Amino acid sequence: MTTPHGAFDTPAFMAVGTKGTVKGLLPAQVAATRTQVVLNNTYHLMLRPGEETIAKAGGAHRFMGWPGPILTDSGGYQAYSMADINDVDDEGVTFKSIVNGSRIRLTPERSIGVQNAIGADIIMAFDDCPPSMDPSVGPTNQTRIRIAAIRDSIKGGYDHAARLRTANERTVRWLERCKKAHARADAQALFGIVQGGTDLEARTWSAERVAAVDLPGYAIGGVAVGELHDDIAGVTRHTAALLPEDKPRYLMGVGYERDIVAAVLAGVDMFDCVLPTRNARNGQAFVREGTLRFRNARHERDFGPIEVGCGCAACDPAGHGWATPDGQPFCRAYLRHLFMSGEMLGPMLLTLHNLWHFQTLMLDIRCAIAEDDWPGFAQKWPRAAAAVPGQDAIA
Amino acid sequence: MTTPHGAFDTPAFMAVGTKGTVKGLLPAQVAATRTQVVLNNTYHLMLRPGEETIAKAGGAHRFMGWPGPILTDSGGYQAYSMADINDVDDEGVTFKSIVNGSRIRLTPERSIGVQNAIGADIIMAFDDCPPSMDPSVGPTNQTRIRIAAIRDSIKGGYDHAARLRTANERTVRWLERCKKAHARADAQALFGIVQGGTDLEARTWSAERVAAVDLPGYAIGGVAVGELHDDIAGVTRHTAALLPEDKPRYLMGVGYERDIVAAVLAGVDMFDCVLPTRNARNGQAFVREGTLRFRNARHERDFGPIEVGCGCAACDPAGHGWATPDGQPFCRAYLRHLFMSGEMLGPMLLTLHNLWHFQTLMLDIRCAIAEDDWPGFAQKWPRAAAAVPGQDAIA
Repeated sequence: MTTPHGAFDTPAFMAVGTKGTVKGLLPAQVAATRTQVVLNNTYHLMLRPGEETIAKAGGAHRFMGWPGPILTDSGGYQAYSMADINDVDDEGVTFKSIVNGSRIRLTPERSIGVQNAIGADIIMAFDDCPPSMDPSVGPTNQTRIRIAAIRDSIKGGYDHAARLRTANERTVRWLERCKKAHARADAQALFGIVQGGTDLEARTWSAERVAAVDLPGYAIGGVAVGELHDDIAGVTRHTAALLPEDKPRYLMGVGYERDIVAAVLAGVDMFDCVLPTRNARNGQAFVREGTLRFRNARHERDFGPIEVGCGCAACDPAGHGWATPDGQPFCRAYLRHLFMSGEMLGPMLLTLHNLWHFQTLMLDIRCAIAEDDWPGFAQKWPRAAAAVPGQDAIA
Repeated sequence: MTTPHGAFDTPAFMAVGTKGTVKGLLPAQVAATRTQVVLNNTYHLMLRPGEETIAKAGGAHRFMGWPGPILTDSGGYQAYSMADINDVDDEGVTFKSIVNGSRIRLTPERSIGVQNAIGADIIMAFDDCPPSMDPSVGPTNQTRIRIAAIRDSIKGGYDHAARLRTANERTVRWLERCKKAHARADAQALFGIVQGGTDLEARTWSAERVAAVDLPGYAIGGVAVGELHDDIAGVTRHTAALLPEDKPRYLMGVGYERDIVAAVLAGVDMFDCVLPTRNARNGQAFVREGTLRFRNARHERDFGPIEVGCGCAACDPAGHGWATPDGQPFCRAYLRHLFMSGEMLGPMLLTLHNLWHFQTLMLDIRCAIAEDDWPGFAQKWPRAAAAVPGQDAIA
């Protein structure tokens, strides 16, 4: 995909840089993981430092020192999941700022206005995004919504099916308003978002209407809010097939390696997820065989690298221009020490490793596509490939 | 000075890497600030991960991935200042571990044994280091000692002059034990430490006896525990002159730019201080005109660099191989945003800047020595030079 700040290869994994920084890395280090696109969160940036400050600084690229493509979300998801919702209506959402408690109004027009000011290369439509599972009965990772829904449910005021239907219809209506409000279509690509939860009929209804709006790309939303792998894969397969083949398809907030592989096979081109970065800060490394937790005592005297053969700055410092003593990588015992001591370098090294891991996955996926060699891919990524439903597509 | 892990230029400023990491930087980034020597703290490393783990990893250099010279302190200062002292006697110190509360015994023999295991290029003698000012009456940054001293004082059990005298004599006796215990004199240079507080006679007594022990270098201890600039400068001038001219002189824990300049003029060759790194984490940048605090609202819409003309990775990313949008440096408004948002990148960028600042000071000092051009130095560093007592030595 080509943007005013350069092209990126697809399928692409975008690194999450919520507040205008991929936590724990300089932009040069983000690039060294072979990450090509960074995602910023509109909700966080509009509250602090405010979109005006970013616009005055020359836009998000210059503010954060990242010359490559940037994508911003619409702020909707965070407005729903992180704030006490005071009011959702056909006009927009009112919520309390997590920074200073003030009341904030977010509408399709305001979201696009903020995203125009921030200046990302790809911006997202403002959608109505309730949890896909009934929060009054099922598990959800959106605790505040769940509490509100339970409260409404007790009062007899919450009907999950009705809520999903409203959200679906509203998202389509809001998309038209987003497109109309978009003032920088020459510089910023607006993507529409398909909603509909795990109800495939609702997905079809939404996808047909969203795809009918002529836009440079389309996203599948509402599939990374606590569902099981099979649900994610099923909804993705169903929805991706309904979106234009000649436009990029973006699966928002997904995910684990196997979810990504399954989605690529369904025709998805773009991904973002906090997993590699957030889990790095919690001391978890992704390796091809699974994950490692460095707070675990078994790493206390383990002097091997995080992963043999890995080319990241932690596992292969020499490959990144740094001559360590005896050419050795940073060892697991050192990483454990850093995490047990609360040292910043622990999250930094694991973020470098985990982003490298996900970008290696994407490179190998692109290679499998180019050479039509999925068996070769399955050999390199046995866990990621084996977990794909209908894996005969691969093997 | 030449070590088994390479030479470093003097006068040298060593970066503090307490727990085996300069907080917030990869070793490659430490080197990019032109830091040549890193200091590790024996007290912290012996408690966690333990010197045996480091020895098994191949020593401190390999454990932390730093191929250059490393210096370890003796652990004495932290044992005194950070722990509840249970017992100080002629044999050693017993204190409670800050990691798990267990009782730890540190003697000259044990300190050297631990330092032999950690494997730094320069190791320090284990000294008895009470606060230089009477903690029962004067200010001190060693709160626990102060509380203990006040308690003893009330009981009539604390006599500051006697405590200093004992410490001074003990430090000299312990130095002989350290030298005898040192098992790797071929690979590690043991430095003796002169004590004596602000009493110049006590300093003379100590310096004569410490210098009488044949060692590769000598340090001036006990001058960075809360004294005023004039006291530091006076004690340093007096003591440095009593130490061999042909051996490196190390002023422990100092300090601000003007303290360093004054000490260099007194003949000091080595420095270490937490100021550039610790203050960076608190949002404070060192610039030639003074300091900047990024939590201050005045930086909210300040789009200039931290310091015009600075060559650090934050002020001159291009000079460090990173092409930012429009070739712009990271701006002050962005740094303020990072600190207000609690993002790791704020401390990281300021640590890069502050260490670069101190290493630039040392380069300019070495240049002033080589070219005998102190007036030129005073032009470049007016504040650091102006604060030197007897600055006619410079101008």
